[in-house]
Amino acid sequence: MQIERNAFIGCDCEYEQAKTVIFGAPFDSTTSYRPGTRFGSKAIRSESFGIETYSPYQDKDLLDYNIFDSGDPELCIGNVDTALQQIEDIAAEILADGKRPFMLGGEHSVTLGAVNAVHKKYKDLYIIQFDAHADLRDDYLGVKKSHACVMRRCWELVGDGHIYQFGIRSGEREEFKFAAEHTKMNKLGLDGIEKAAEELKGKNVYLTIDMDVLDPSIFPGTGTPEAGGVQFTELLETVFKLKELNIVGADINELSPQYDPSGVSTAVACKLLREILLMLEK
Amino acid sequence: MQIERNAFIGCDCEYEQAKTVIFGAPFDSTTSYRPGTRFGSKAIRSESFGIETYSPYQDKDLLDYNIFDSGDPELCIGNVDTALQQIEDIAAEILADGKRPFMLGGEHSVTLGAVNAVHKKYKDLYIIQFDAHADLRDDYLGVKKSHACVMRRCWELVGDGHIYQFGIRSGEREEFKFAAEHTKMNKLGLDGIEKAAEELKGKNVYLTIDMDVLDPSIFPGTGTPEAGGVQFTELLETVFKLKELNIVGADINELSPQYDPSGVSTAVACKLLREILLMLEK
Amino acid sequence: MQIERNAFIGCDCEYEQAKTVIFGAPFDSTTSYRPGTRFGSKAIRSESFGIETYSPYQDKDLLDYNIFDSGDPELCIGNVDTALQQIEDIAAEILADGKRPFMLGGEHSVTLGAVNAVHKKYKDLYIIQFDAHADLRDDYLGVKKSHACVMRRCWELVGDGHIYQFGIRSGEREEFKFAAEHTKMNKLGLDGIEKAAEELKGKNVYLTIDMDVLDPSIFPGTGTPEAGGVQFTELLETVFKLKELNIVGADINELSPQYDPSGVSTAVACKLLREILLMLEK
Amino acid sequence: MQIERNAFIGCDCEYEQAKTVIFGAPFDSTTSYRPGTRFGSKAIRSESFGIETYSPYQDKDLLDYNIFDSGDPELCIGNVDTALQQIEDIAAEILADGKRPFMLGGEHSVTLGAVNAVHKKYKDLYIIQFDAHADLRDDYLGVKKSHACVMRRCWELVGDGHIYQFGIRSGEREEFKFAAEHTKMNKLGLDGIEKAAEELKGKNVYLTIDMDVLDPSIFPGTGTPEAGGVQFTELLETVFKLKELNIVGADINELSPQYDPSGVSTAVACKLLREILLMLEK
Amino acid sequence: MQIERNAFIGCDCEYEQAKTVIFGAPFDSTTSYRPGTRFGSKAIRSESFGIETYSPYQDKDLLDYNIFDSGDPELCIGNVDTALQQIEDIAAEILADGKRPFMLGGEHSVTLGAVNAVHKKYKDLYIIQFDAHADLRDDYLGVKKSHACVMRRCWELVGDGHIYQFGIRSGEREEFKFAAEHTKMNKLGLDGIEKAAEELKGKNVYLTIDMDVLDPSIFPGTGTPEAGGVQFTELLETVFKLKELNIVGADINELSPQYDPSGVSTAVACKLLREILLMLEK
Amino acid sequence: MQIERNAFIGCDCEYEQAKTVIFGAPFDSTTSYRPGTRFGSKAIRSESFGIETYSPYQDKDLLDYNIFDSGDPELCIGNVDTALQQIEDIAAEILADGKRPFMLGGEHSVTLGAVNAVHKKYKDLYIIQFDAHADLRDDYLGVKKSHACVMRRCWELVGDGHIYQFGIRSGEREEFKFAAEHTKMNKLGLDGIEKAAEELKGKNVYLTIDMDVLDPSIFPGTGTPEAGGVQFTELLETVFKLKELNIVGADINELSPQYDPSGVSTAVACKLLREILLMLEK
Repeated sequence: MQIERNAFIGCDCEYEQAKTVIFGAPFDSTTSYRPGTRFGSKAIRSESFGIETYSPYQDKDLLDYNIFDSGDPELCIGNVDTALQQIEDIAAEILADGKRPFMLGGEHSVTLGAVNAVHKKYKDLYIIQFDAHADLRDDYLGVKKSHACVMRRCWELVGDGHIYQFGIRSGEREEFKFAAEHTKMNKLGLDGIEKAAEELKGKNVYLTIDMDVLDPSIFPGTGTPEAGGVQFTELLETVFKLKELNIVGADINELSPQYDPSGVSTAVACKLLREILLMLEK
Repeated sequence: MQIERNAFIGCDCEYEQAKTVIFGAPFDSTTSYRPGTRFGSKAIRSESFGIETYSPYQDKDLLDYNIFDSGDPELCIGNVDTALQQIEDIAAEILADGKRPFMLGGEHSVTLGAVNAVHKKYKDLYIIQFDAHADLRDDYLGVKKSHACVMRRCWELVGDGHIYQFGIRSGEREEFKFAAEHTKMNKLGLDGIEKAAEELKGKNVYLTIDMDVLDPSIFPGTGTPEAGGVQFTELLETVFKLKELNIVGADINELSPQYDPSGVSTAVACKLLREILLMLEK
Repeated sequence: MQIERNAFIGCDCEYEQAKTVIFGAPFDSTTSYRPGTRFGSKAIRSESFGIETYSPYQDKDLLDYNIFDSGDPELCIGNVDTALQQIEDIAAEILADGKRPFMLGGEHSVTLGAVNAVHKKYKDLYIIQFDAHADLRDDYLGVKKSHACVMRRCWELVGDGHIYQFGIRSGEREEFKFAAEHTKMNKLGLDGIEKAAEELKGKNVYLTIDMDVLDPSIFPGTGTPEAGGVQFTELLETVFKLKELNIVGADINELSPQYDPSGVSTAVACKLLREILLMLEK
Repeated sequence: MQIERNAFIGCDCEYEQAKTVIFGAPFDSTTSYRPGTRFGSKAIRSESFGIETYSPYQDKDLLDYNIFDSGDPELCIGNVDTALQQIEDIAAEILADGKRPFMLGGEHSVTLGAVNAVHKKYKDLYIIQFDAHADLRDDYLGVKKSHACVMRRCWELVGDGHIYQFGIRSGEREEFKFAAEHTKMNKLGLDGIEKAAEELKGKNVYLTIDMDVLDPSIFPGTGTPEAGGVQFTELLETVFKLKELNIVGADINELSPQYDPSGVSTAVACKLLREILLMLEK
Repeated sequence: MQIERNAFIGCDCEYEQAKTVIFGAPFDSTTSYRPGTRFGSKAIRSESFGIETYSPYQDKDLLDYNIFDSGDPELCIGNVDTALQQIEDIAAEILADGKRPFMLGGEHSVTLGAVNAVHKKYKDLYIIQFDAHADLRDDYLGVKKSHACVMRRCWELVGDGHIYQFGIRSGEREEFKFAAEHTKMNKLGLDGIEKAAEELKGKNVYLTIDMDVLDPSIFPGTGTPEAGGVQFTELLETVFKLKELNIVGADINELSPQYDPSGVSTAVACKLLREILLMLEK
Repeated sequence: MQIERNAFIGCDCEYEQAKTVIFGAPFDSTTSYRPGTRFGSKAIRSESFGIETYSPYQDKDLLDYNIFDSGDPELCIGNVDTALQQIEDIAAEILADGKRPFMLGGEHSVTLGAVNAVHKKYKDLYIIQFDAHADLRDDYLGVKKSHACVMRRCWELVGDGHIYQFGIRSGEREEFKFAAEHTKMNKLGLDGIEKAAEELKGKNVYLTIDMDVLDPSIFPGTGTPEAGGVQFTELLETVFKLKELNIVGADINELSPQYDPSGVSTAVACKLLREILLMLEK
């Protein structure tokens, strides 16, 4: 009896052989505005059969590499502490097995779970963040682990100058002040990417992409769409510039598929994921 | 300068004169399946101008009574304990002013906040619950204050035989066993309502209506639609049978307007709210 | 070169042979709440190919009769007086040719245009109205020809006791008072239909169906959905009871297809239209 | 590494232990009107986590039985002959292993593939069909294996008097004539079910449920919604009356989830599937 | 009892202190194609809580200024003359109080009401219009005050050379001929903005932005989307170039939120509004 | 009696006078992923009244030319061979009458039907294809006439070097290899258009535009949206560069209107069609 596998297209090798392991983080309990990213990872997997495994951009094919997708765990909706611990445990297991974790959010807060695990293995960790929002609040209505605070929490782990932010175009005045002192923020666009890629050569890097960095015209399926974003091709080219880096963990997040009945946002996430996965392979 | 008031249609008297005070509870962080009820109260208020203030069912008009709608507070998304405390505080203030609180959810967990306040004032409190789901789990993935556990938590307050459940058609086997011992459950339909109304005469009653008790054909805009529900007219007639009771607090909840692009679910909630408000007035 | 005809399914005979002539009235400028009925007639025509021409209810087939559909005229959006005159002219032309006009709304106000024409030909005219709303206001925000006033305007033409209203479940208190004195109103349901059919035998009757008389569970695609309506089969059986009457004009109205992405409301309108058309044929 | 299983809720036993084997038939190439049922089986599986495994109707729980869900095969879109052969092969394998196939459509034409396999094993086969449409055309625009012809094709296999049809309310005049001579058709409703259950005792029965037999108010997510259908509870009670029969194969079909953005249709299909699966278990 | 205020985010000072007063103009009765802009102002207000009060573009914060939002008046749907008079009265009251009116449409025709009031105070008035459509027809199907004619009507007030049009890419041939003689039209794009800003220095300027000037990829929620529009950032930068001008009144219009279920169009309108409000503050 | 014509705006001359004849090809049975293009041509026609007949880009007006739109034929859903033959017959009739066929898809496979007819008349035929996908597979799951194979089938007719491909950004590795040897492919963008226009001067050219060549931000309404596409203005300018060519047949295809509830994709298709029709006229 042939059984359907539940994996992103072309990512169905055996776990043991995989270098990169995909897992979902279907969690959105702290979402401040419009919830729904809990359905993001499932949608990416399910709609991935609308794209090809081959990339004409990189002339590479997912079928030529060993990538494993373990699907979605059942996370504890309603309790961010428990959920983040669950995520950390999964990432830690993957890291312990000598593989690279690649997480599919969920809201951006899930990054904290994965970074916790990665940071325990790689003490001198750098983070590259693509995002429309600074995510540097100290708390959001009293909640410390809100998705609006995730990079602030990460900064508490990795320290000053270790977070590179790109595409930021929304936040409170205080967040921009904080960034001026503690992070390397590139406001509005992606200009500083070559410089960052140069500085980060040889470092251990965690890559987190809040897909709302994209212009909402191409990525409307997200909780807090923020006009004035980057184009898809622009983001793709920027991602390709990271291919020499030592990326030890990664995630893409904040797809909320139900806000985009056309399915374009999900298709964009699928294509972006394919390109990053292929970029990571040497 | 004339200023638009933000209130349910016909509920714009001064606070001091009001007997019933409406407030929103825009919270859905523990929603187990599809979130979105945080937008319920706002939608009810905004769409209420599609219905009339007059009820041909009861031959009463909202314009003839003093009802006040205070709008939505900003609740702490992501932290159920804080949010429930905020709700309790609002309800307590209304009760302290000698008025009846009428809450618009939000997910069903918010009922716990209001019941906490009402129970502090009325020790021997009875609850009438209309719902598709038993909501009697002890926890949901470890979360105790989940919307799937709200009646269990209420039971801990009001005790055996104090909760009357109607329309229940979904739950774990354990919940139905629990109900058999501790609550007065009417499975599937609304049959026992006359008996309940008889038994509860003279008692202090809190009325909570999870609107998913309605058949999803007429109320699709909810997180966990459950087929086999009651018709709108059936629910209306049942509600009218409660008019002799001493209802000291009430809520309607679990409208998730974005799941119903036709707006019918919101219109149903508006009409139901009008009818209950009128039923409460002598 | 074969050319596609723009007509309701099975209604593509030549104009000269037709007994019944269908035309659209794509107008909604006075709609008080949610506009969009201007797209109703077009949707009915376009989606009619999802149903059959044969009715198993009546064992009749549209293909066996001569019915002509002239499509939609371009009505004057933004000026209700001009639009009603355009409608009256079309109906008058059909009547002058000895045929029966069957109008597809559009909002309910368009009925006034058709009734103007029919009443000029048949002085002692009776109207049967199926509707959720009384439509008996004298004006709506100062507008006399609003869809909320259409039966009041018709009453000014046909006089006391000449309007039979069914299914009415919404209105201001004043409208219900007016009805008690001037029309034959059946509140909430369709009970009085046999009596009406008896009384109207031999009279000239205009039939107007505001499809929001149906429960919004089956007909969500309308501007002001009103819960507690009649079921489809109930309406069908009621319509069949009119088959002995002398119906000299008819319309169905208030479909707003964009509010129902499932297309069910439009399919319901198509089936209802087929059944009425067949009922009218001897 | 824990891996997410791709199965209907509670249907994740090992294949070897299963008595009933679920598989998808994601095919809709012959759909005459609005396509999209190819996404039906996937949606049912994915949304099944919104319902419980326990049925308060039957007091049974999916967790207490051995049911296996193999997921969706990749069928040949665009070629109905190939696709039906693929389906027949899967059903034949399940039957050869001594298990009962339970297929999730797809459009109704897929039933022919499964019935082909079942009929090869059980020569004297009876079919119970719930459906809004007769599906008895000899061809549709020249296509013989269209979903509009599927019961005609099945009749060619099983012969006169072997097909019991329920809920039929749409078709060409010719189909109703054909039914009068060759099948046991119950027009419009479900009345003859007790008689059928009596007659079919001890026979081998294939059960096929085109879910558009339900009223479109509760099941709008289908290609050709047909008003005047049966209520959910009505269908449920009817299904329960089949529990003494020897059902050797079954399917549910014609869910087109994208036409119902509320998700109610999919939730209805999930609940119906749970109840049938439990009904089949002794 | 804390009461929710019904205002655009950060615009809740007291009326007396305000320099700019926002009001809605929920009117769309003359909309030629797809109605729905009557819901635009309400949506902007309600969704404004998805953006921040701080602008990283201008390094300004709404919280630092006094802006008052009076909400939506109830305009006379169905009668454009009455509605425009209502709008004029509101704008006149604001102007009489020495404040600047900022109107949220509604369809573009509402601009005529506001310009009527502004022109009575500032006789030598200039208008800057951003729009996809010329709006220069003399009438539309006989209606003079249609949204398709609004700039023609404004031209009758302010005269030759006093209207600067940008982004125009749709109209009848006659409208473009009219523009060549009577207005300063910049076809397709925004090129002439510096020149215009130079010429208008020291003049009294009314700014009207039909948001369909934006490309429909970023602003799909409008009645007549017109491909080939300007990008969001492009429009923002253009708006910033007006900051030295003496803008005595302004509006944004033609958001029809229901056509964009993703909510992006409304979010775009919110962000645009914030940026214009901040640009107006010295 | 005035009768509504069923034609694209401004394309309602008599057949005999027409130089260009539009017809629909409502077929999508081989669509590999998300079906629905069968509704494309009807939507284009119906929504065309949202745009003007005049083009400010070309300063031309459809009303000044003779173009005929015959509407949609009823194609054989479920059988690609029959459907393609039907299409070929229609195109052949138009060609035999000395007119240019302009087909509105439908999925891309329909191009084969039209090219079959055109190629029989013009043996040395060149094809210009705008598309996101190469469409050069030899088969798709065994189906040879799938929309994923259409240019491969066309290549079998017209031969090496006769197909110019633009905007291609998706396919299997094998398709790109095939293109390198047999077609003139311009990957990702539209750069080679001037060169192509030069080379094709004086040749007989068939123009086929799969509208998914556009970026999905502006054209989300299609079955397999592929990020990284061209902008609308870019495509328009490219199309204008073809105006000196001898275009003997043309089509636009792959609009699936139901995936874009905003209607923007359909509006884009309408505007594109208008501009191509005007470009074709000398």
